[in-house]
Amino acid sequence: MLEYARNRGFEAVFAGEPQNIYYLTGFWGEASVIVTADEASLVVPALELERARESAPEVSVIGSDRGADMLNKVKEKIGSRKAIIDNVDVATFNRFASILPSGLTADPEGLMTSRKVKDDAELAFLAEGGKVMDRLYEVTAELLSPGIDERTVAAAILEEMIRMKADPPAYANTLNPLIVATGPNGSFPHAYTTERKVEKGDFVVCDYVLRYFGYVVDATRTFAVGAVSEEMKRSYDAVLQAQLAGIGAMKIGAKTDDVDRAVRSRLSKEGLEQYFVHGTGHGVGLDVHEGPFIRRGDQEVLKENMAVTVEPGVYFKGRYGVRIEDSLIVKEKPLLLTHFTKSLTVV
Amino acid sequence: MLEYARNRGFEAVFAGEPQNIYYLTGFWGEASVIVTADEASLVVPALELERARESAPEVSVIGSDRGADMLNKVKEKIGSRKAIIDNVDVATFNRFASILPSGLTADPEGLMTSRKVKDDAELAFLAEGGKVMDRLYEVTAELLSPGIDERTVAAAILEEMIRMKADPPAYANTLNPLIVATGPNGSFPHAYTTERKVEKGDFVVCDYVLRYFGYVVDATRTFAVGAVSEEMKRSYDAVLQAQLAGIGAMKIGAKTDDVDRAVRSRLSKEGLEQYFVHGTGHGVGLDVHEGPFIRRGDQEVLKENMAVTVEPGVYFKGRYGVRIEDSLIVKEKPLLLTHFTKSLTVV
Repeated sequence: MLEYARNRGFEAVFAGEPQNIYYLTGFWGEASVIVTADEASLVVPALELERARESAPEVSVIGSDRGADMLNKVKEKIGSRKAIIDNVDVATFNRFASILPSGLTADPEGLMTSRKVKDDAELAFLAEGGKVMDRLYEVTAELLSPGIDERTVAAAILEEMIRMKADPPAYANTLNPLIVATGPNGSFPHAYTTERKVEKGDFVVCDYVLRYFGYVVDATRTFAVGAVSEEMKRSYDAVLQAQLAGIGAMKIGAKTDDVDRAVRSRLSKEGLEQYFVHGTGHGVGLDVHEGPFIRRGDQEVLKENMAVTVEPGVYFKGRYGVRIEDSLIVKEKPLLLTHFTKSLTVV
Repeated sequence: MLEYARNRGFEAVFAGEPQNIYYLTGFWGEASVIVTADEASLVVPALELERARESAPEVSVIGSDRGADMLNKVKEKIGSRKAIIDNVDVATFNRFASILPSGLTADPEGLMTSRKVKDDAELAFLAEGGKVMDRLYEVTAELLSPGIDERTVAAAILEEMIRMKADPPAYANTLNPLIVATGPNGSFPHAYTTERKVEKGDFVVCDYVLRYFGYVVDATRTFAVGAVSEEMKRSYDAVLQAQLAGIGAMKIGAKTDDVDRAVRSRLSKEGLEQYFVHGTGHGVGLDVHEGPFIRRGDQEVLKENMAVTVEPGVYFKGRYGVRIEDSLIVKEKPLLLTHFTKSLTVV
C-alpha cells in the first residue's frame, strides 16, 4: 500500500473507513490508521483500546480521546509527510486536511485497487460465506408457502445467518438488511420488506447479503409459489440464460463491459432488455458494493481472484420481478461461491 | 431547511446521505435531493424510480443512469446557485464540487440542526421503537441461562426485532448488528459477538439498537447469571446510580456537559470514574449516533424533544463489564422511551 502511495509521490497512507482499517490491521471499529515507512499506527478512542490491541497485534495501538486529542495524535504520526486518505466523509476529510502541514489528498481508489484481488485467506472466508448462503436458501425453500409474510421469512433467515457465524453487513442505502419481495413487491429491485403474505402464483425475490469474517457474499434467488403463468416462466428462463451468459463471459482478461453485454444481449433476444434497470454486477469483499463494477461501458479488465456478482433481473411494475444472482471468483473458469439450484424452485 | 441555507448565503440545499434524503422526502435509498426556492427534486438511479415515486409523492422524482447522467441532472437542478451539501463521502463531494459552476460547500451540521429536535410524528415512531426494545429485553431475560452462547441470543433477538417491524440499523463501525457480551467479553464496550457460552456468575451486557420507521432506539441492560460477586453488585449499583443521576440532570436548558458531569461525579464517588472509558450519551434519530453528544466539555444546550441516550458503563479488563442505557426524550421531566427494569435482573 505504501508502495502505491510512493509511486504517486506520497509518503503516508491514512485510512478512516472501517473496511480499510480491517484490511490493513485486522481490527474493525472506529479508528484511524496511519502507515509510513517507519511504522503502522492505529489511533482509537479509549473504549476501543483493549479490543484493538487484541485484534491488531502487529501494529502500534494508540488510545486517544475523541476530538482534538485524536487529531493531534494522527498529526504527530503523519508529521510533515504528504498523505493520501481513503473515502471518509467530507467533514472528517476537512478536519484533518486543515491541520496537516502538508495537506491531505483524497484517494478513494488506492486501497480498493489492492482489495479487488483476493488472497488465499480472503478466498477461504468467501467460500465459507458461500456455504452459509446456500444454507439460507435451503431454509427459505422450506419456509416459503402461501400465507407466510415477508418479515417472518426475513426474520428466520437473519436468525439462521447469525447462528452460522455470519452477520448482516451495514449497507446505508436500504432500511432492511435483506430483501424478501413477494408478488408485486418484487418489481422494486430494492424492495422494502413488508408484511405482505405470500400468495399462490407469486414469484418471491430473495436477495440476501451476509458478511463472514468481514467478507461479503451476495446472492439472489427467485422462487415460484405453486403454479405461475407461462409468461412468468419465460421471464425466469430469460433471466437465467442471461445470468449464465454473464458467468460464461466472466474470464480473466475480459472487460467488465463484455460481461455486461453478454447479459444484455441475451435479454434483448427475448425483448426484455428494457425491463433490466440496473447494472449487471459488482465486486464484493469488505464492502457490499465495490469495484470492479460490471456495467455498460466500463472497460475494467477482470483479473484472477477478483470476487464479483452477476445479477440480471427484470421488473414489471405492479406485477412481479425476477432476479438471479451469484457471487463468484474470477478464474480461468469462474468459481461460483453460491450453489443453490437456479432451476425454478416451486414451493 | 432552505431558510437555514439562505441565512448563510446559499440558495440550494443538496443532500446525499440516506437519512437526510429520508428526512426531506420520505424515501430511503440511493439518491440525491436538491431543494431550491422553486422545487424539491429527487434524482435516483433507474432501479429506484418506482419506489421513490411511491415513497416521495410530494417531490419531483427524476430517474437517471449512474455516473455522468446523474451528475448532469443534479447540475441542471442546482444551476448557478450556491449550494451546501450534507456529510457525503469525500469522493462524492469532489465529483459534484468540480462540476457545479458556483462550487459546493460541505455543511454537515445544517440538516442535523433541524433533525435534533423531533416533531410529533418522529416522537411517535420513537415511542413505538421503545416498546419493541422493551420486548427484546423480555425475550433476553427468558433466553439467558448457563450454556447458551452469545450468537444464539443475538440471533433470537434479531428475529424478534424483525418480526416486530423493526430493523437493525446500518452502523459501519461494528461487524455485529447488536452486542451480547458475556463474562470477560463485557469488558469491551464494543464487544464482538462470539460463541462464548454463558456461565454462572457472569454479567451479560446486552446493547441493542433498532430502527422503527427510520427512527433509532438504543438501549443496554446488564444481566446477572445466577449469583454474582459483591464487587460486581457494587459496580452495577454505582453504574445505575450514575445513570439515574444523568437522567435527573437531563433538563430543558441544561448543557450536555452538566449531564456528563452528573454521571461522572457519581461514579467518581465510588472510585470508578477511571473505568468509564466512553461518552455519557448521544442523540438518536435517523442516525445511531447523532447530535447532541453528551460528553465532557460539550456546552450544547438541551432543547425540548431532543432524543438522547444516557449510558454510563464500567469495564474491567479480562473480568466483566456493566453498562446501563436508555433512550429518552428531553422534556420538563425526561420521558423514557425504554422501560425494562434496571433493578439487577438475575437469570
